Amino acid sequence: MLKLYIGNKNYSSWSMRPWVLMKQAGIAFEEVMVPFDSFGADSHFKKTIEPLNPAGRVPVLVDGAIVVYDTLAICEYLAETHPDKALWPRDKARRAHARSVCAEMHAGFAALRTHCGMNIEADLRVQGKIILRDQPEVRAELARIVQMWSGLLEAHGGPMLFGEFGIADAYFAPVGVRIRTYGLPVPGEITAYIARVQQLPGVKAWIDDALVEKRFVVVDEPYRIEG
Amino acid sequence: MLKLYIGNKNYSSWSMRPWVLMKQAGIAFEEVMVPFDSFGADSHFKKTIEPLNPAGRVPVLVDGAIVVYDTLAICEYLAETHPDKALWPRDKARRAHARSVCAEMHAGFAALRTHCGMNIEADLRVQGKIILRDQPEVRAELARIVQMWSGLLEAHGGPMLFGEFGIADAYFAPVGVRIRTYGLPVPGEITAYIARVQQLPGVKAWIDDALVEKRFVVVDEPYRIEG
Repeated sequence: MLKLYIGNKNYSSWSMRPWVLMKQAGIAFEEVMVPFDSFGADSHFKKTIEPLNPAGRVPVLVDGAIVVYDTLAICEYLAETHPDKALWPRDKARRAHARSVCAEMHAGFAALRTHCGMNIEADLRVQGKIILRDQPEVRAELARIVQMWSGLLEAHGGPMLFGEFGIADAYFAPVGVRIRTYGLPVPGEITAYIARVQQLPGVKAWIDDALVEKRFVVVDEPYRIEG
Repeated sequence: MLKLYIGNKNYSSWSMRPWVLMKQAGIAFEEVMVPFDSFGADSHFKKTIEPLNPAGRVPVLVDGAIVVYDTLAICEYLAETHPDKALWPRDKARRAHARSVCAEMHAGFAALRTHCGMNIEADLRVQGKIILRDQPEVRAELARIVQMWSGLLEAHGGPMLFGEFGIADAYFAPVGVRIRTYGLPVPGEITAYIARVQQLPGVKAWIDDALVEKRFVVVDEPYRIEG
């Protein structure tokens, strides 16, 4: 069976993507949780992950002798090995567009990722206001997200970015979580899309797990104190 | 015919990747050069690119009504539309591995990209020594590149990373250029691989064009003064 190595569900936005993709698409897999720790060379996290992925990061997908690391490569692997699931849109132009926005997410949105780290259980709406006030790059990236999602929802008629649920929705699911956690202001149709995604059983399952996880990791908590 | 929008050949490492991929694989395309300028909202660059790619970046591939932006999406599109060219390895495990290292490149190596911007015509070997002395993250990323390439060349027997030339070699071609420009120290088998890549006709064509380009862009020249 496929094995997916992931980090903490409350924090690991990269782990969330393939996990919710497989869960929602009905692809069976075994989850291997490797809790975040010090990330030092001798840490349990690094010692577990580095033999699989020399870059030392999650997620990693293991399929028998095949090891796929890095989220986008995992999504491509799943799309290729499960053609019946239409994880990318079946239409060629939509597929090219879906790959473009996922690649944009994969390499970009650095300010949003830096200042608004995923933290599912937290309520950081006050912090979100401060971040928006002080960080013009976060404002610009949020505007790009709104422009992208609005355009895609209008072009394809919803309910998901390219019509039916697929890799692009999984790819942006953690962004929706951040928008909610930090209370970032977005138009009503964006709020509604985020809610639709978070109500998908595969996405809801991750969020529910994150809410009961309760493993406070200091390096992922710039805005809270433990206890 | 396919149209590829690119930036300056001396500087635009992202443009280089699909260009050398298509050239070397013998995929016909029309090149549309959009020279780097101020990148302001009213600049020629932004006004040309933004209608194609709202993120405002090159490269962009246009295939009739289909627009593919972002390098990794372009490479996937080319692989899908030219299955005869084996742009990804034909072997499933190698293909998964090739996608993993390309996704790692797509999202990573931030220090190398920041401190050692591509500059094909320049000789920045003194600067390279200073960067290596002062930037531990550049040293760590260079070590990861050496580990990755050595492992792949040994596992697959060369001459390219996964045997025959493909997307992974195109993806890392600008890294080889940087290693040469900045004189970054690497083992002999890595130097030999870089030389083999740079001697491929498709790669050599880009480098030759870059050498005669002579369009000095201040924002891409932290280490030189024009004239």
